[in-house]
Amino acid sequence: MASNFQAVKGTRDFYPQEMRLRNYIIDTWRRVSLRCGFEEYDAPIFEYLDLFTVKSGEEIAEQLFSFTDRGGRDLAIRPEITPSLARMVAEKINALPRPVKWFSVPRLCRAERPQRGRLREFFQWNVDVIGVDDILADAECIFACVEALREFGLTPADVEMRIGSRPLWTAVLDSLAVPTERRDDVLALVDKRFKLPEDAFDKLLAESFLNDEQTSVIRDLLSHENVTVEQLLTDYSGRVDIGQTVERLSQLLGYLEAYGIAEWCVLDLRVVRGLAYYTGVVYEAIAAGERAVAGGGRYDNLLQVVGGPAESATGFGMGDVVLGILLDEKGLLPADLASESLNFFVIDAVEGVFPKVLDLVARLRKGGFSADCHTRRQNVGKQLKQADKRGARCSVLLSGNDLRIKTMASGEETDIDATTFLDDPGKWLQ
Amino acid sequence: MASNFQAVKGTRDFYPQEMRLRNYIIDTWRRVSLRCGFEEYDAPIFEYLDLFTVKSGEEIAEQLFSFTDRGGRDLAIRPEITPSLARMVAEKINALPRPVKWFSVPRLCRAERPQRGRLREFFQWNVDVIGVDDILADAECIFACVEALREFGLTPADVEMRIGSRPLWTAVLDSLAVPTERRDDVLALVDKRFKLPEDAFDKLLAESFLNDEQTSVIRDLLSHENVTVEQLLTDYSGRVDIGQTVERLSQLLGYLEAYGIAEWCVLDLRVVRGLAYYTGVVYEAIAAGERAVAGGGRYDNLLQVVGGPAESATGFGMGDVVLGILLDEKGLLPADLASESLNFFVIDAVEGVFPKVLDLVARLRKGGFSADCHTRRQNVGKQLKQADKRGARCSVLLSGNDLRIKTMASGEETDIDATTFLDDPGKWLQ
Repeated sequence: MASNFQAVKGTRDFYPQEMRLRNYIIDTWRRVSLRCGFEEYDAPIFEYLDLFTVKSGEEIAEQLFSFTDRGGRDLAIRPEITPSLARMVAEKINALPRPVKWFSVPRLCRAERPQRGRLREFFQWNVDVIGVDDILADAECIFACVEALREFGLTPADVEMRIGSRPLWTAVLDSLAVPTERRDDVLALVDKRFKLPEDAFDKLLAESFLNDEQTSVIRDLLSHENVTVEQLLTDYSGRVDIGQTVERLSQLLGYLEAYGIAEWCVLDLRVVRGLAYYTGVVYEAIAAGERAVAGGGRYDNLLQVVGGPAESATGFGMGDVVLGILLDEKGLLPADLASESLNFFVIDAVEGVFPKVLDLVARLRKGGFSADCHTRRQNVGKQLKQADKRGARCSVLLSGNDLRIKTMASGEETDIDATTFLDDPGKWLQ
Repeated sequence: MASNFQAVKGTRDFYPQEMRLRNYIIDTWRRVSLRCGFEEYDAPIFEYLDLFTVKSGEEIAEQLFSFTDRGGRDLAIRPEITPSLARMVAEKINALPRPVKWFSVPRLCRAERPQRGRLREFFQWNVDVIGVDDILADAECIFACVEALREFGLTPADVEMRIGSRPLWTAVLDSLAVPTERRDDVLALVDKRFKLPEDAFDKLLAESFLNDEQTSVIRDLLSHENVTVEQLLTDYSGRVDIGQTVERLSQLLGYLEAYGIAEWCVLDLRVVRGLAYYTGVVYEAIAAGERAVAGGGRYDNLLQVVGGPAESATGFGMGDVVLGILLDEKGLLPADLASESLNFFVIDAVEGVFPKVLDLVARLRKGGFSADCHTRRQNVGKQLKQADKRGARCSVLLSGNDLRIKTMASGEETDIDATTFLDDPGKWLQ
């Protein structure tokens, strides 16, 4: 085989079995979104390159698949959908009914080095609320995220929703005289905390531009893994003005409590998120092994960055790759995903009736039932075997106008005439 | 607004309303596919460039968005999915259960000049049968295509399934001593017949390398718009050996008759299709104004071209853009696509019960109902107005443990306690 005729490394072929798994995950995301009052949207798979580089930070910019079209325009395949969302909302802000509660399941591409849990092409559930400053919007997104995890069969023992705060970090870094223009670098460094072995992280911290006092306070912040708002006030309110920030965190925890999902959630200052556009509360759904199943937060400036009005915004993304691995590990993938199912498999039991087989198949399909027949002449035994392999609920043996219905699971057989059968085929599927 | 922060021309933003339309079309395609016994698959959105250039012909090669990754590999966004399908099937041919009856709804990109009905990014339903040489496989694909058109509300008066034959053209061109290596050029020219004004097509034909006799016979073939197999035999069997070809066409018409869709179908030699990989019967679903809603045919060599075994294959594609325009013109888009719908909108009728609102919303959602509430404090009247705008079936006014359910359509109100309501919320949606 010519070596080029393979899938590109880091991409996936979805054969029917893999496709059923993908559909199971995406259908669940959709169902939970609609249930939570979100509406679906989507954007083009490629955009002007600038849209992605303007504010997402270096990590994303390095991962772009970019190209130039015949008109010399610099374009790129989307590595995330949030910039497109900001562009779309900014463009029609005055015409959109509020609140903007939208979700999407975009296909995204990143030019990463492929590894377990990280591919160059994947699907990501995105849930966002735009135009609501109240921290209730963040709680609403976190609820949707937890509701999906729960729907997949996961529990708080499997996944922890860790909630951090960018404003608290900003206030502390300001108090340490870290220059504003270096703030993103520090937060990007902090975000690597879980992605690197501890000694590699220590080395990065030591080699950074930070002085000893700054490094020491950062280490202190990083030790706040499971804290209460009271502890935050005790530890930091003497040093910086974090009253408003802590009040919002406290409100958020109240909402999460009312939503009945407090047991999933924990305050954890180690979470800062890697993207540069976050401005408020940030969070990550973390599974064993420090694997992020989902992550998000508030990004109040992004609409302005893409030329729109000032509008608050918040949301999260959940990718299909890490989630799929986790569900598989936990044995939470439904077993019946492995087999397709067909309602009826129609068999010509005698010679010369094949046109009637096609007629019956067509009538069943028009009636909304899935129905099929063999594609080459075979004896009845072989056709029954194929019906079984195809997962058919019933076989229909046809000879003239007389039918014999065979329920595949029980083996039970009943003779019936075609007209009576077509009056109510659903009866045989109960 | 910075001029770059717009969607690239020829791509579409799917705001919730456009997304509902897209989902309506794609859900219908999926439903019809499953009903006809096809299984869903998908491939990566980008592949090695060569996969697309090896056999699709010049038209596709010119329309590729190609790029180079960091490793220097030449890649391209898929302009069609058939090459990926051939690659995937070739790779696992011995492990796949037969027949391979697969469908997909890929997102495709082509670097075309955007115009009405032709965009640079679109969705295309693809339905294929691989490994079945019998013309029944072609009939099966045509049935699925027609079944979808019917499901969308279209009739034979709206769309005509025109069926042509590549082997017949090949036989005639051979008899005219058109060199094999120029055959694809002639067929590509013939395919332009409907895409150009008549005089522009005449000019192309006159300027081509064809001599007068060749041109004259081609014009004769092009006059066979609505023919019978008998007429084909009368007109051509003296000149070339088309016995087998005509027998297959005759068989195909028999199958289509048995399937009950003969009234949609017509033999039409003008249909040859633009792609170079077709080898057998070809067809196009044509609406008024010579607009192709779908097109396909048999491509028996493609698996070998991508390095696989010899396997017969046949299938078609139907794009969302032309179809969407047609359905809109005919008034066939469901009216309720315009509005979202929510089961319950929960309202705090008195102060201080907002945590209970969130609790009720969470319980309804966990029960599988779509439920929402306001995101900022408003009086009851304004909240009811929002419930109405959101298309809620019922509003739930909460004060303490007492609820008042308001059916939005009738305005009817009932008082009930929260526990009784939560026992069976579905009762209020009937």
